[in-house]
Amino acid sequence: MKLLRFGNPGAERPGLLDVQGVVRDLSGVVADIAGDTLSPAVLDQLRAIDPATLPAVEQPGRLGPCVAGVGKFVCIGLNYSDHAAETGATVPPEPVAFMKATSAICGPNDPVIKPRGSTKLDWEVELAFVVGSHVSYADEDTARAAIAGYFVCHDVSERAFQIERHGQWMKGKGCDSFGPIGPWLVTADEVGDPGELAMWLEVNGKRYQDGSTRTMVYKPAFLLSYMSQFMSFQPGDIITTGTPAGVGLGLNPQVFLDVGDVVELGIEKLGTQRQVVVAAP
Amino acid sequence: MKLLRFGNPGAERPGLLDVQGVVRDLSGVVADIAGDTLSPAVLDQLRAIDPATLPAVEQPGRLGPCVAGVGKFVCIGLNYSDHAAETGATVPPEPVAFMKATSAICGPNDPVIKPRGSTKLDWEVELAFVVGSHVSYADEDTARAAIAGYFVCHDVSERAFQIERHGQWMKGKGCDSFGPIGPWLVTADEVGDPGELAMWLEVNGKRYQDGSTRTMVYKPAFLLSYMSQFMSFQPGDIITTGTPAGVGLGLNPQVFLDVGDVVELGIEKLGTQRQVVVAAP
Repeated sequence: MKLLRFGNPGAERPGLLDVQGVVRDLSGVVADIAGDTLSPAVLDQLRAIDPATLPAVEQPGRLGPCVAGVGKFVCIGLNYSDHAAETGATVPPEPVAFMKATSAICGPNDPVIKPRGSTKLDWEVELAFVVGSHVSYADEDTARAAIAGYFVCHDVSERAFQIERHGQWMKGKGCDSFGPIGPWLVTADEVGDPGELAMWLEVNGKRYQDGSTRTMVYKPAFLLSYMSQFMSFQPGDIITTGTPAGVGLGLNPQVFLDVGDVVELGIEKLGTQRQVVVAAP
Repeated sequence: MKLLRFGNPGAERPGLLDVQGVVRDLSGVVADIAGDTLSPAVLDQLRAIDPATLPAVEQPGRLGPCVAGVGKFVCIGLNYSDHAAETGATVPPEPVAFMKATSAICGPNDPVIKPRGSTKLDWEVELAFVVGSHVSYADEDTARAAIAGYFVCHDVSERAFQIERHGQWMKGKGCDSFGPIGPWLVTADEVGDPGELAMWLEVNGKRYQDGSTRTMVYKPAFLLSYMSQFMSFQPGDIITTGTPAGVGLGLNPQVFLDVGDVVELGIEKLGTQRQVVVAAP
């Protein structure tokens, strides 16, 4: 099942993508794709609906972020052996975690805003997932059962802000528009094994990332179990799981994004995103 | 004006503390102390109410976190010269920022939960503030005008999780119950200069922190202006501004919290907190 949100920013409505690729309006069934809507029980209710009985949306227009009301946005760093190598790091003995501000979240095709003073705007295609149940000190099986679904996340990063501006990475990770998620949330049952998904990212038509979740070191269920030893997770929290090789920082010479560049990215089974880079207002 | 939230976790109601120290019920006036309630216009409306016309709450019971619906919880590190020295660091040339998970937020007198595996549970009394307006690329005067009010924040920290578990600090900063805020939000007009406030913290009656915001390096309005160069802020976002000397990590020998310990802390004009340390369930 593919869940999505469509409409103008802040006024999105919940929808479902049927097998013909038609958006069906879910706003008569659930308030939003958020919080308790992501619980196993409500997802089962949605699965029981014949999509043909839901209103078809002829012109869905803009897609919003596929999850609303995100409480926390946890990111895993250096989680692909090839990416760790290109940044000069080694894969850590346990996951490296940081946070993105939830105000960075935007729709999958919204513009990426180049912040004022940005000189090293970079890309990262990532597999993300959303939690559907309360999770605390969970073992890996419990964590796996709490993953409501998966989606594409572009972990947009400003490397100078991240690395050269003193302290923690969040300055270069949480800028507005640095968290496009979607186009849709694909429920876990439909994804199957999240460790066998091709993933790619292109800038202006040139492919820079061409990887697979097969080279991911710490897998989603392990990551949620691991993180739940430090803090509890609530329905609507999301974790994005790191990027494979091919980011701009790792190239020789390095390549960074500028205003007007077009970024396209996608993950097998999860759809694609497309963003144009614009200047900060 | 002192705003607060009272009632059981998740079911708090908004209130106002009158000059006699009586809690007055604001639930007939605003939905919660959150988001747009913190705007200058709504705060002016609240100030115009004679508190005696609001229902007195005879038994307010538990105090909840003084702000609800926090979108992001930004923390500033190493922002007091004496604290930087005790941790072996120097004051950085620009603010060090990190994030606490919003799921860490709790009431000012709720128990502090010692996580499983915790060996270095530490304390930090901090001055925090909440944003009342949308803020982006703000100068210092604009930022100052956007600060709705100030409150005490206990930046509870697990040093082994923070420093020895690979990567960013968030693992030791965002554990459940690691963000008591309150007892009340004191509006900016009533606080006056936030750079002249005495602050203290005691464990089992012994005073460990005895400082003042006078030794704070980067002040609140500067911090909000600075952070707004990296990301926008929305009403309800909070920033906590760092701690003075006297944390357990900086002592020789080091001192850490254990189950049964009682922590009391306070800041001039902003009230006090009291927490008992309990074991994780």
